[in-house]
Amino acid sequence: MLNALTEDHWAELQNLLPSDRFKPADARYLEEPRGRYHLSSGLVAQPRNTNEVSALVAFCNAQKIGIVPYGGGTGLVGGQVMVKGPAPLILSLEKMNAVRAVYPEENVLVAEAGVILADVQAAAQEVNRLFPLSLAAEGTARIGGNLATNAGGTGVLRYGNTRDLCLGVEAVLPNGEILNGLSRLRKNNTGYDVRHLLIGSEGTLGIITAAALKLSPRPARTGTAMLVVDNPKAALSLLALARDQIGESVSAFELIHKQGIDFLEETLPDVRRPFTVAPQWSVLIEVGLPKAMNPADALETLFETALERGLVSDGIIAQSQAQSDAFWSVREHIPEANRRIGSVSSHDISVPLGALAEFIDTAGHRIDKLGEFRINCFGHVGDGNLHYNVFPMPGRSRADHMNERDEIKRVVHDLVHELGGSVSAEHGVGRLKVDDLERYGDPAKLAAMRAIKTAIDPFGIMNPGAVLRT
Amino acid sequence: MLNALTEDHWAELQNLLPSDRFKPADARYLEEPRGRYHLSSGLVAQPRNTNEVSALVAFCNAQKIGIVPYGGGTGLVGGQVMVKGPAPLILSLEKMNAVRAVYPEENVLVAEAGVILADVQAAAQEVNRLFPLSLAAEGTARIGGNLATNAGGTGVLRYGNTRDLCLGVEAVLPNGEILNGLSRLRKNNTGYDVRHLLIGSEGTLGIITAAALKLSPRPARTGTAMLVVDNPKAALSLLALARDQIGESVSAFELIHKQGIDFLEETLPDVRRPFTVAPQWSVLIEVGLPKAMNPADALETLFETALERGLVSDGIIAQSQAQSDAFWSVREHIPEANRRIGSVSSHDISVPLGALAEFIDTAGHRIDKLGEFRINCFGHVGDGNLHYNVFPMPGRSRADHMNERDEIKRVVHDLVHELGGSVSAEHGVGRLKVDDLERYGDPAKLAAMRAIKTAIDPFGIMNPGAVLRT
Repeated sequence: MLNALTEDHWAELQNLLPSDRFKPADARYLEEPRGRYHLSSGLVAQPRNTNEVSALVAFCNAQKIGIVPYGGGTGLVGGQVMVKGPAPLILSLEKMNAVRAVYPEENVLVAEAGVILADVQAAAQEVNRLFPLSLAAEGTARIGGNLATNAGGTGVLRYGNTRDLCLGVEAVLPNGEILNGLSRLRKNNTGYDVRHLLIGSEGTLGIITAAALKLSPRPARTGTAMLVVDNPKAALSLLALARDQIGESVSAFELIHKQGIDFLEETLPDVRRPFTVAPQWSVLIEVGLPKAMNPADALETLFETALERGLVSDGIIAQSQAQSDAFWSVREHIPEANRRIGSVSSHDISVPLGALAEFIDTAGHRIDKLGEFRINCFGHVGDGNLHYNVFPMPGRSRADHMNERDEIKRVVHDLVHELGGSVSAEHGVGRLKVDDLERYGDPAKLAAMRAIKTAIDPFGIMNPGAVLRT
Repeated sequence: MLNALTEDHWAELQNLLPSDRFKPADARYLEEPRGRYHLSSGLVAQPRNTNEVSALVAFCNAQKIGIVPYGGGTGLVGGQVMVKGPAPLILSLEKMNAVRAVYPEENVLVAEAGVILADVQAAAQEVNRLFPLSLAAEGTARIGGNLATNAGGTGVLRYGNTRDLCLGVEAVLPNGEILNGLSRLRKNNTGYDVRHLLIGSEGTLGIITAAALKLSPRPARTGTAMLVVDNPKAALSLLALARDQIGESVSAFELIHKQGIDFLEETLPDVRRPFTVAPQWSVLIEVGLPKAMNPADALETLFETALERGLVSDGIIAQSQAQSDAFWSVREHIPEANRRIGSVSSHDISVPLGALAEFIDTAGHRIDKLGEFRINCFGHVGDGNLHYNVFPMPGRSRADHMNERDEIKRVVHDLVHELGGSVSAEHGVGRLKVDDLERYGDPAKLAAMRAIKTAIDPFGIMNPGAVLRT
């Protein structure tokens, strides 16, 4: 059993480290973006270096006090806000925000956990390299949180998830020991991959304090197009064709449904829409090519072949950076439009690519049986990852459907599970999906997870209640 | 403490499963390729399916009998032969050799652990896909062993290590439970990544019985060249240039030293050598391009730019598949030539790319101080992974230097460690490098590994003595 953080502990901590490392939590630490979890108060530590993190963790471990690691606070599953149980220490990494080193010739950058994702991207760009992790919250999210949650985003198709962009981590383990694993090596087979265990463990096995990140060459030339497809199956065939023609250089492939465009029109009319009449389904494709290839030619050839094969019926290839930005603006404003409409239930799911069309069809039918709703289904279709969001009909609000919410969620998640999919493709488990993990997770895997948790964090101080029930 | 496998156990096992699942071990189970570890006898189980593996493991766990998992037996660090301690059960996966399913449209193939690597490659090729793991032992090595050791090879530069080619695993855990993790998903953030913990754990945390493997589109056109470089630093600059010009399509980039060519001439004179006078350093580069690019043009442009920049002084671009095969034949016969010469000490090391040239220089100087030797340093330079092998001078044999062997190893490994490198880049720890892991490994990582091992395998039945000391 954990102990609550008391005034006495607070005083002791201020003897341990300089007092400017501590403060009462202001609002941003006490609530997450979707407002599902909130606290009235809390205490925050802001260590300046790894030794300070180690001292704080060792203290909490000795006193059996919970720790909630805090990065940019942008997580969508409540991993950063602990609302039940004895008061924990909120341990924010935001003052550890140095890019420690950049090795352009190695394509490696070493960043502390508190560096904002956009700043990692900028530091890479300064040396003409690319850090390809890209997601809506990149101006606020911090790389330590991205690693802890194995964040996804639009670059996964080409460059992989966050775990694939990390060569090594430095971390403080629950006993306060520092794991010195900032390897810049591409190959290293010396024992268990503790790095991959920490990545995606959502702060429940230790605190990542710094990471050696993998950079890529910047593609010399990029091109963007919006192409109209008949259905999601055609979108996947189009992606396969694109990869045959262009190889690994397809950087993004995002599916967009008419519903999303309609929501934009309704809530954000200033966002320019590429087609006069919104198509039922369209894809945003981006290619990033080496010097020897011309993006406009490549997209033209792709479009013509796809037209011949009946995979696309219309399309626009961006003729300028402004037009390309306009296409991306559509994609990037859809989540905001969704928020303004207000979903009854939102789902971050993935299914095997071969089951994707079936998922969309069947989910639609099953939800139809529950009542009248509008569905906005969009996302990283090349990864099998869809944001499948269910909205009220015009004139009704999410509040009108609160009773149906759990059933909708269950219907969607059951179907995902039937099809061999995941009920958390890129956002993680946090506190929101602990029940789902228990319901849908493999029992042997869950048992192994619990055994590992107990072995590494015997008192359960690290992010209590996230991922695994306390 | 473990118990030895006795005649009584043997009889009980034959009641548990059909008796044709069991046999006395013949020679191939009792020795590994380099002959460092050998046994006089042993008992082998050959289960046919995952449930049989589960029954065997549960039995051994209940009886506290060690299990040595056995794939193709090609490992180079003694992970497959246990010579100390109570007699274990050798559990061979060779009868579990079905390709369970192929999903060309998903770029996924599900293979049982006992499928030979070359057969995985062939099954992918049948559906016009590529399984890019490629290594010298591919005709004998089995995919379960490749996964257990996170094998490397020549495709890592473009496609990653074996762990990067695996979407999910099915495994039997030490308590006999089956972990059903054959996910075909590209994105799945539901809890700890137990897959990555099992991959590379060398059979010490469980037995991988099947895996969902990631396929790639086959590059439409490939091209090969041998280019002469002044030194390893120039080779790395050449690689950076190639990536700027050609993007991710550089499939292989292998460094070759004159010593290797000389060994070929001495021991395998029939292998055609591309240059009349063997260059001090050369690289074998292969590109695999999409349809829209011409490999000969791409390599020509690369060569010309590199010549202008003083990175290369000579080169040959293969004009036919036969010439390309001849280039690869040089690279692939170097390990055999090495065996025929007989090394005093061989090293599978990696260093950060920026430290590679320094490593080669300094290692040469330090070994010079120990006596007169010939050094053949070659390998996957783009991954920072070198095979750094030390040989006797002509007229002397490895037996003449047995006393110096440990010191040479220590000098090389100490330098690797100083430079932030790894003493086992792609072969693993096995039983050969347990001391090295203890000497050079991060203490916090080692402690975490031991805690995980105890949590998952409390009796220590899985591959006792491999990776971690019993």
